[in-house]
Amino acid sequence: MKNIRLAFLGLGTVGGGTYEIFQMNKDLIEERTGCTFTVTKILEMNTERVKSLGLDPELAVTDPALIYDADDVDIVIEALGGIDFPAEVMEKSLERGKHVVTPNKAAVAANFDRLKAAAERGNAEFRFEASVGGGIPALTSIQEALAANDFTEVMGIVNGTTNYILTKMGEEGMSYEDALSDAQARGFAEADPTSDVEGIDAANKLSILMYLCFGIYIHPNDIPREGITKITMDDIAQAAEENCKIKLIAGAERNGDEITYSVAPRFVPIDHPLAGVSNEFNAIYITGNAVGELMFYGKGAGALPTGSAVAGDIIAIARNM
Amino acid sequence: MKNIRLAFLGLGTVGGGTYEIFQMNKDLIEERTGCTFTVTKILEMNTERVKSLGLDPELAVTDPALIYDADDVDIVIEALGGIDFPAEVMEKSLERGKHVVTPNKAAVAANFDRLKAAAERGNAEFRFEASVGGGIPALTSIQEALAANDFTEVMGIVNGTTNYILTKMGEEGMSYEDALSDAQARGFAEADPTSDVEGIDAANKLSILMYLCFGIYIHPNDIPREGITKITMDDIAQAAEENCKIKLIAGAERNGDEITYSVAPRFVPIDHPLAGVSNEFNAIYITGNAVGELMFYGKGAGALPTGSAVAGDIIAIARNM
Repeated sequence: MKNIRLAFLGLGTVGGGTYEIFQMNKDLIEERTGCTFTVTKILEMNTERVKSLGLDPELAVTDPALIYDADDVDIVIEALGGIDFPAEVMEKSLERGKHVVTPNKAAVAANFDRLKAAAERGNAEFRFEASVGGGIPALTSIQEALAANDFTEVMGIVNGTTNYILTKMGEEGMSYEDALSDAQARGFAEADPTSDVEGIDAANKLSILMYLCFGIYIHPNDIPREGITKITMDDIAQAAEENCKIKLIAGAERNGDEITYSVAPRFVPIDHPLAGVSNEFNAIYITGNAVGELMFYGKGAGALPTGSAVAGDIIAIARNM
Repeated sequence: MKNIRLAFLGLGTVGGGTYEIFQMNKDLIEERTGCTFTVTKILEMNTERVKSLGLDPELAVTDPALIYDADDVDIVIEALGGIDFPAEVMEKSLERGKHVVTPNKAAVAANFDRLKAAAERGNAEFRFEASVGGGIPALTSIQEALAANDFTEVMGIVNGTTNYILTKMGEEGMSYEDALSDAQARGFAEADPTSDVEGIDAANKLSILMYLCFGIYIHPNDIPREGITKITMDDIAQAAEENCKIKLIAGAERNGDEITYSVAPRFVPIDHPLAGVSNEFNAIYITGNAVGELMFYGKGAGALPTGSAVAGDIIAIARNM
């Protein structure tokens, strides 16, 4: 069996979740891929975390050059968070011929062309299925099984925090403030929820979806964006009166050469499949000129769902190696 | 650009739809794959159909050996329908090193091991994404992006005819007989609807789903099966009273080493994502130990949606060639 050598940049929620999946489903993954997987390097300051996952703290380094210059690393898993530093480490890894997998939508969306170019220079694979919709395999499907389609529309509920808040407001009559506190108490929202509730996270994901569906690159900062902070119980009531639910939609539509796009709350008719996507679940709804309307639904966040997508990318690379 | 040579066995709904997609999206497919695609052989008696698609009737042959023994065919697209004859032609094509793509669930489900073995002997690819859920990219996702998961459950609404009938009964109060006539008038049901309404078609698809999710092969004839012909308006009313909808579910569940499976009408709670799958739409709902619950939703039949999946398989093979 071929041995694939992995380097983790960060062993937080997603990095740790990915490693746990390779432990939990070891036999099955080896059988399906014909490969074994070994962690050879870890960039992680928290050695307690390294130990608690059952990994050897001797593998931990603090200098990323010891990973991108290493000769015992096949695939780099970037799960650090942030934008500039992870983008730089991914670029250096790719141009040195190391394959890279990342769930980091902010770093991908802000550096798409630069990372693609580095992958070409290094003849390496760059995969980021987990960056949109967590465990939902939409990005791979758009690029592979659906590759015969000319896409005309993509609409996503791609932020679990805001969808949870809107569900609580719509179904339990909670105010925005109470719903946000509830989401924070359950770990669905961060202490500073700005990136979620202002639609910044969703704009990163829409940038990636547009690139894959339409082949155009729009920087996330150039996407018109409205969050959910101004939504009132009156808006919710008005939506219900019109047989709709309010959802934060990251959407883009193409008419000929013209593409319109935005992240904004929208009234979604209750018989539309996206209206049934509740709580922290995500969904991506796309229309192609061959396949028609298609929806992917699942968990958009969390250690194991997001780790599932990262692990799927690692497996795809291993099978190609 | 690499030229990929295609042979179509049958140019009916799906064969013709697949060819139309390669015409309609020619530039885009060439750009995405770096390949051109040429039809070099056609097994089709109806030369009017060949001409009406703009293909040269000189390419049409009536002896399948002229296709599986040909030296100018890379990929065989089997869209004949039936079981034994297409299985034999696929087997011979595969063992002679020709890649095979098919939407034919009955032929695949009844001959899984035989076709897999032929593909190994011939070192050829055998792909059948379109055989379950039409254009929905579930099978590829299960085998690739979700390959790190141990699956515990799979449930599908995988037959559009019965879902259309059940929707009309549930939402418009039509009787079974009226709903069936309506489905036939709209082309969603065949003159002899037995295979659909008795769950035979769904059992073929469940056999394929179980093979991919759990790695076990159950012949479709060995799947306990109940159709929708006995469903009454009283059943519909009782389901509504219990806040449920009746859906024909092709489902399998694994507990440890024990797998239970059946095709049968079930009460599905209205807040379950499968309850919102109406009319001729299909959905596949799976649970993996990493990704959690996931649903794929889309068009399960029709020339272009099913052709989208066949074309996706052709593109995947072309990229690997």
